Amino acid sequence: MEQIVRERIIESAAQLFAENGFGRVSLQDVASLAGIEPHEIFELFECEKDLYMVVLESLFNTYSNKMSDAFKDSNKPPENLEAFAKTMCDLHKQVPYLFTLYYRELLAPSEQFEPVVLKNIRHVAYLSDNNFAKGVQKEIFRHGINPAMATLMFAGMFHYYFLAKEQIKSLLPKTFDDEEFMVLALKVFLNGLHSET
Amino acid sequence: MEQIVRERIIESAAQLFAENGFGRVSLQDVASLAGIEPHEIFELFECEKDLYMVVLESLFNTYSNKMSDAFKDSNKPPENLEAFAKTMCDLHKQVPYLFTLYYRELLAPSEQFEPVVLKNIRHVAYLSDNNFAKGVQKEIFRHGINPAMATLMFAGMFHYYFLAKEQIKSLLPKTFDDEEFMVLALKVFLNGLHSET
Repeated sequence: MEQIVRERIIESAAQLFAENGFGRVSLQDVASLAGIEPHEIFELFECEKDLYMVVLESLFNTYSNKMSDAFKDSNKPPENLEAFAKTMCDLHKQVPYLFTLYYRELLAPSEQFEPVVLKNIRHVAYLSDNNFAKGVQKEIFRHGINPAMATLMFAGMFHYYFLAKEQIKSLLPKTFDDEEFMVLALKVFLNGLHSET
Repeated sequence: MEQIVRERIIESAAQLFAENGFGRVSLQDVASLAGIEPHEIFELFECEKDLYMVVLESLFNTYSNKMSDAFKDSNKPPENLEAFAKTMCDLHKQVPYLFTLYYRELLAPSEQFEPVVLKNIRHVAYLSDNNFAKGVQKEIFRHGINPAMATLMFAGMFHYYFLAKEQIKSLLPKTFDDEEFMVLALKVFLNGLHSET
């Protein structure tokens, strides 16, 4: 029972922190959205910071685990890049607050940035960098591609898309969807990396 | 004299709004950073919202004007793309708060998003979309590239880079700089758009 309440709290807290930012959310607000009594939340979490840390850890562990799966076969760099793109889009559908909280942390890092956010981002960046390096080594990707920069460029297309799409959708084709963006981004990027000029 | 005070206010306000977000900055805070007396700011601006609008208009007009220059020769799509990338990097150096305020508006749009931010973004997106369309028409860029998506992808690489680089620089090569990122992003992207497979 306590586990169910705890999960409901974390879910409501993720939504409120994403919508309003840490510092503009109280434990009472979270209890109210979760539909529980205030004493139930005070029994589980000491303060807002405590809850925020648990929320970030839960979301960024999910991110790190799902993204690790994308790179599981080290012999297939282009296929792994496709899995990376697909996992980003899946995660954005399944845990949208993860991304909003990440962008908020990039704009104004909290104490949790280094130990939670960066720790998990570093792990995924390491896998992605290795994947690009492997592709260059196998001569599938062109010589001279810096793996860390390629990771930043590729991830960047998706992150900006997630950050901006709701607000700028009037600039995009009406029939536009995530899938279509992913396919084109992957195509242009893989073609751009391709070893012949 | 009033013009100099006004410009100093706008500059200080841009910094404070970027650092703290609209809603966490008072006219007094701005006067204090600008090194002027509170009555001087109250004579020029009625309230925070009034000042915020003027700051956004000033920054986004700069953005729109500089970016328009990048697309001035409609017969050179790849060169225009290079000018686009270069202008983004120049603007980020010259008016860094422009970008921070843009990302804040994307995360939590104010009343000014539609009339100021989106109006200027729309203008630049229109020029960039036309540039991609022209490149496809001239068969420099591959057939089937959707111009609006190409704009989003290309701008996205730079926006995410600007949003993230301070916080994730420990993941990047030590010697890494904006110029290097720009050159590689442009190279991979132009190569990716190139009409032969």
